[in-house]
Amino acid sequence: MKDAKPYIQEHKQRFLNELIDLLKIPSISADSAYKGDVIKTAEVVKNSLKKAGCDHVEICETPGYPIVYGEKIIDTSLPTVLVYGHYDVQPPDPLDLWHNPPFDPVIKKTELHPEGAIFARGSCDDKGQMYMHVKALEYMTQTNQLPCNVKFMIEGEEEVGSESLGWFIERNREKLANDVILISDTGMIANDVPSITTGLRGLSYVEVEVTGPNRDLHSGLYGGAVANPINVLTKMIASLHDENNHITIPGFYDDVDELSSEERAKMAEAPFNKEAYKKALAIEDVYGEAGYTTNERNSIRPTLDVNGIWGGYIGEGAKTVIASQAFAKISMRLVPDQDWKKITQLFKEHFESIAPKGVTVKVKPHHGGQAYVTPITSTGYKAAEKAYESTFGKTPIPQRSGGSIPIVALFEKELKSKTILMGFGLDSDAIHSPNEHFGVWNYLKGIETIPQFYHHFTKMNK
Amino acid sequence: MKDAKPYIQEHKQRFLNELIDLLKIPSISADSAYKGDVIKTAEVVKNSLKKAGCDHVEICETPGYPIVYGEKIIDTSLPTVLVYGHYDVQPPDPLDLWHNPPFDPVIKKTELHPEGAIFARGSCDDKGQMYMHVKALEYMTQTNQLPCNVKFMIEGEEEVGSESLGWFIERNREKLANDVILISDTGMIANDVPSITTGLRGLSYVEVEVTGPNRDLHSGLYGGAVANPINVLTKMIASLHDENNHITIPGFYDDVDELSSEERAKMAEAPFNKEAYKKALAIEDVYGEAGYTTNERNSIRPTLDVNGIWGGYIGEGAKTVIASQAFAKISMRLVPDQDWKKITQLFKEHFESIAPKGVTVKVKPHHGGQAYVTPITSTGYKAAEKAYESTFGKTPIPQRSGGSIPIVALFEKELKSKTILMGFGLDSDAIHSPNEHFGVWNYLKGIETIPQFYHHFTKMNK
Repeated sequence: MKDAKPYIQEHKQRFLNELIDLLKIPSISADSAYKGDVIKTAEVVKNSLKKAGCDHVEICETPGYPIVYGEKIIDTSLPTVLVYGHYDVQPPDPLDLWHNPPFDPVIKKTELHPEGAIFARGSCDDKGQMYMHVKALEYMTQTNQLPCNVKFMIEGEEEVGSESLGWFIERNREKLANDVILISDTGMIANDVPSITTGLRGLSYVEVEVTGPNRDLHSGLYGGAVANPINVLTKMIASLHDENNHITIPGFYDDVDELSSEERAKMAEAPFNKEAYKKALAIEDVYGEAGYTTNERNSIRPTLDVNGIWGGYIGEGAKTVIASQAFAKISMRLVPDQDWKKITQLFKEHFESIAPKGVTVKVKPHHGGQAYVTPITSTGYKAAEKAYESTFGKTPIPQRSGGSIPIVALFEKELKSKTILMGFGLDSDAIHSPNEHFGVWNYLKGIETIPQFYHHFTKMNK
Repeated sequence: MKDAKPYIQEHKQRFLNELIDLLKIPSISADSAYKGDVIKTAEVVKNSLKKAGCDHVEICETPGYPIVYGEKIIDTSLPTVLVYGHYDVQPPDPLDLWHNPPFDPVIKKTELHPEGAIFARGSCDDKGQMYMHVKALEYMTQTNQLPCNVKFMIEGEEEVGSESLGWFIERNREKLANDVILISDTGMIANDVPSITTGLRGLSYVEVEVTGPNRDLHSGLYGGAVANPINVLTKMIASLHDENNHITIPGFYDDVDELSSEERAKMAEAPFNKEAYKKALAIEDVYGEAGYTTNERNSIRPTLDVNGIWGGYIGEGAKTVIASQAFAKISMRLVPDQDWKKITQLFKEHFESIAPKGVTVKVKPHHGGQAYVTPITSTGYKAAEKAYESTFGKTPIPQRSGGSIPIVALFEKELKSKTILMGFGLDSDAIHSPNEHFGVWNYLKGIETIPQFYHHFTKMNK
């Protein structure tokens, strides 16, 4: 396959403008106030697939937000690549920490992105990375180089648990039949250290509610005499980790796949600068489970983090009140072979069991997904390796990520094919944070590398 | 002194209407958005004092909200009663739990208030109880029965720590000179069990801030590897109580005045029905410091309660984020002889000392005040006792309250006089809570009892 660079350079500005237009739509799936924008985004994605060369595109309705499907079948005897991505984004708050409005994209140079980066919610996760595939298809069709069949499945509920995706896949196994699934929704180590994500953590996300007295109480008249739901909630959450930061939920670690010392040694070879890591986050020290390195703590070990907590008076000034209720959103990152439904149940049983008399506790499961590992011996991984070699000039490092793409395990179960995670973002791109951005160089490098994957994968399957 | 009942019955409707008008103004001192309403309320109070018979009234400016002063001096050789109250109110939230708008008063019958109760923020704390004194003055002046001199000092910052009051008193010792201070900002045991509050708890109110990474982080990529400020905050707060619910701050109990077993036995005589208490709050059990009864826990023992907590994503749905910061408002109720400034310092030092590496902790003192005890041997207490006997037909029970009126200790220090706490509200009146109310019977009973206090106090001082 020809080098895509010249075509990309010629159309660079248009590629950027099209992505910027997509980023201007606040497709926040977690907040129903943005429903109209989420649906509008699906329309824009559908049209972009049509323009890029799909023969057939459609908006597929689901119990939730629609899934955009597109395909170009050139020869049924050739292999088929299924591209998955999502057009929804995380909520942008806290808004006051953004240097520019999250849905008003700007390109600014940074230390890691000397050619500039696009700052906007969704620029990297996942609109930018998803759109690389649309532009890669455009390149292959415009230059008559598409070597195989391609299908697109772009959903709008990834940030809220992809609930409708399973429903959709079960009903469309035929339509979605493929030889490999290609996803760009992860990162790589650095622009000069290409890597391919071979592992993802699973997830269990729950919301807890602690109810004490039937009304807010005066903390003077009742303080000390009744259980304060906020004090109780802090005690309950604190008890979920022991002094070594091990999680105390009975049975939590039972199914954890412990890596061999060889595997851990191999992991340790990946470049990591602890001082730079601390400096980037402005923290005095790292913090986590005893006996594991930072890279292990955020990839091969399960975790429990409070993502949000609220209760009582949080306005200006002081209010001497004992709140009737306190709440928290808690998520657990899981590793092979923990089952997210089993863990969710273990959490629920344990958390309810530690509630003291005087309060009632409710645990509401939100969503979850299984962890996943891609074998580096698979054809798909080998093809991706060659693609990176041809565009980066070096062999990518296989890397376990701490993030979760719950549906990857689902794909293997339902569609019987392997997923290749070709991510071009950087951990420092602040996805899920204020000032999320995506390097212009990374965006274009992705568009350049993806066609090479098609080429090598097709060749290897001949 | 003549029985005030006939006058009160004749003017009952007007007494209620005047209070309702006062309650319609949202004088929330904690929220600067209501500044205009707070100041307007001061004006209304000033005019009501003039109408009630004060010879001289004025709005006294302070660094904060103004203090309304009024006086009627009939003979400098006679004793002088200084009435203190406050015209500001607590924030009404959570608003959705109010059955009627907090500043749109309605009168409804309740089980404990068969003659009806006025439902509105401030109805009991303290507009309603403060206004009893204004109407009692009206009665005494209209019927030419005022037996002594009277001064009023009504402030607008009680719910936020009375910061300007100390400033004002230091500069007006002459003007405020008195023989006894009379306050109705507490409760009584029941309408058929009159009681006089002889003790108040002190207060230390602080706000804490835990800062981890310099930005919100993706809980997948960083979860388990960096200190999560919310998890850390819950651990730190939980550690402030041990398994017996003793507070763990070093030195916290050093100055606590431990009651003798005789005193505790006397306290235990006050009627208390634990089952009714639990039923009223819809809790399965009470909760608190080991070794003490419910009535002791909320009156003679110091406490530590979280009044508000917040951090991370608290919106609809799920967001997998590690927040950069977490916050809490924490108040400690203190007892004789704990010094609130010392306790605040002890809290600050301890809380900062238990912060793990990887986060920084800030403790911001809000406000506070000393605990107070009124000797039941004082002339003021004896006069109040006789006043209750004449209107309730029974001797009031001396009672220690769990609440705080920080400035009572200040009065004794600066003005060298004792404070008598004649409260006519009930603990169940939901002050500081949604649906705060004040019994119509209690309101009128206060107006009836107060003149009797003036009568007996003057007689005893002859």
